[in-house]
Amino acid sequence: MHVLVLGAAGMVGRKLVERLLGDGRLGKADITKMTLHDVVAPAKPERPGFPVDVHAGDFAIPRAAERLIAGRPEVIFHLAAIVSGEAELDFDKGYRINLDGTRMLIDAIRLAGGGYKPRLVFTSSIAVFGAPFPEAIGDEFFHTPLLSYGTQKAIGELLISDYSRRGFLDGISIRLPTICIRPGLPNKAASGFFSNILREPLAGKEAILPVAETVRHWHATPRSAVGFLLHAATMDLAAAGPRRGLTMPGLSATVGEQIAALKRVAGEKVAARIKREPDPFIMGIVDGWPRNFEARRARQLGFTTAEDSFDDIIRIHIEDELGGNFVA
Amino acid sequence: MHVLVLGAAGMVGRKLVERLLGDGRLGKADITKMTLHDVVAPAKPERPGFPVDVHAGDFAIPRAAERLIAGRPEVIFHLAAIVSGEAELDFDKGYRINLDGTRMLIDAIRLAGGGYKPRLVFTSSIAVFGAPFPEAIGDEFFHTPLLSYGTQKAIGELLISDYSRRGFLDGISIRLPTICIRPGLPNKAASGFFSNILREPLAGKEAILPVAETVRHWHATPRSAVGFLLHAATMDLAAAGPRRGLTMPGLSATVGEQIAALKRVAGEKVAARIKREPDPFIMGIVDGWPRNFEARRARQLGFTTAEDSFDDIIRIHIEDELGGNFVA
Repeated sequence: MHVLVLGAAGMVGRKLVERLLGDGRLGKADITKMTLHDVVAPAKPERPGFPVDVHAGDFAIPRAAERLIAGRPEVIFHLAAIVSGEAELDFDKGYRINLDGTRMLIDAIRLAGGGYKPRLVFTSSIAVFGAPFPEAIGDEFFHTPLLSYGTQKAIGELLISDYSRRGFLDGISIRLPTICIRPGLPNKAASGFFSNILREPLAGKEAILPVAETVRHWHATPRSAVGFLLHAATMDLAAAGPRRGLTMPGLSATVGEQIAALKRVAGEKVAARIKREPDPFIMGIVDGWPRNFEARRARQLGFTTAEDSFDDIIRIHIEDELGGNFVA
Repeated sequence: MHVLVLGAAGMVGRKLVERLLGDGRLGKADITKMTLHDVVAPAKPERPGFPVDVHAGDFAIPRAAERLIAGRPEVIFHLAAIVSGEAELDFDKGYRINLDGTRMLIDAIRLAGGGYKPRLVFTSSIAVFGAPFPEAIGDEFFHTPLLSYGTQKAIGELLISDYSRRGFLDGISIRLPTICIRPGLPNKAASGFFSNILREPLAGKEAILPVAETVRHWHATPRSAVGFLLHAATMDLAAAGPRRGLTMPGLSATVGEQIAALKRVAGEKVAARIKREPDPFIMGIVDGWPRNFEARRARQLGFTTAEDSFDDIIRIHIEDELGGNFVA
């Protein structure tokens, strides 16, 4: 099986590729080739068990998508996107990559000929939802994006459902929860603090909490995100019918619950590294974010998280990112 | 005020233009100019009270939208579309006109400069909804189009909400009910029979009913459709907030209720011109169509129908299309 990953240099993309290289298979099929793409060159894996092609460049230009699918990958993970803040600041870039790029990809697939009909896994986002919404958003709640990024993801979902219905590809859009604990350096995303307040203290550093402990949000580990992608790539999509956009399962927790879990797993001293500095700007943004989802349909279709509690989220970070150790 | 109508040669477009010419004003503003566009030249009105430019051609080609908005119309009615059956049969044409054409229009507006920010009224469709759905579809039910046409309309709605939120235009998308009684010749649309079984008997002709009398659907007169368009063009959109797609009010009625109304308004002899010829193909299509909507939000925002009953729907047809007479 030939697997193509678009956005392979991003955080989730790298973890997905690592897992695929380690497993050497996807579902029941041996991987015989991988093609990795991103705007910057993804790392070339050392000693993979099969050929790995690495491409760097803009995929939203004429013929780029045709070249990427030239080897007719049977499974395509489409994780490439301009993130929400940048898509808001640079209108043209957001629409060009997130909408036109996605459309170029699915049109290249549609026009490839020869009965080519790959599985396409598209990472959508809970940003397709905007306030006001129910405390727990159900699977049939309408899309009301309040950012261009969420608009572009919602359009991607509609296109992939229609292209799937028409038989051009076999697509699924999965709306990932906010990834927690996100590894790496603190970033400036408004959602960054959800991870910062756990990751930094575990590394012996201080972290800023800019919102109240009552703020509730929807989380899943990087390990769960990779699990969702693998299941989306291998599940029987006939069971999903024509509705190919799914909110992934996650864990709804308040910041207070996050901190309590940190204390239980790593101790009071670690949790004391969190400094409370309320930031009205971030509080205002976070106020409009989803707090909880039902995600029944995804669970019925076999999507499961790797964690059952926020304690698990912290333990998984310690296992997967810190080699089992943290700075007590 | 300068008013641009795209799709001015279609049934609703012609009625809208006729009304605007007759009124000479839109809301509180005198109309000083009209620009009419369609793929075939709309009829040039005789002795209008203001200049009327007529354009014919494809609006989804480079620079066409720029030319149409060159006179900076303050209000744009965007009714141009490839209809559902054709968009399903000709994939490229449907996406090119319904998606790319709409995007070219809103991008031309966005890039016009000089603070240009017109009111844009986009005719969407209840085809953004697909079965299964609740008996009466609420205002927060998700979009699950089962046709490319509905997908394209749903995408248009998302784009117009985002472009409005970003301040490029002041847009609203209105989902029209099935228009009943549609004037003119019987057409081959799967929904055609809803009008055919009333219009043809009133003209002394036989009509075929291909479905059971229990079939329920969502209707509004052409007069109501024009009223919705005028209200959408003149209402205060601040009240709608960022959610700019609205299901228009209508009348939910079964075919049996339609026929009973015909008997009451026009007599048993007229209704006897309906011939029952069940068509499993059409029955199958109609089975997946919406039966009823709540449309609370549109009503709260001041959208009203011209009719309160199916008897009214028939009377309005007799008044507006038949000069007050029918073949008894």
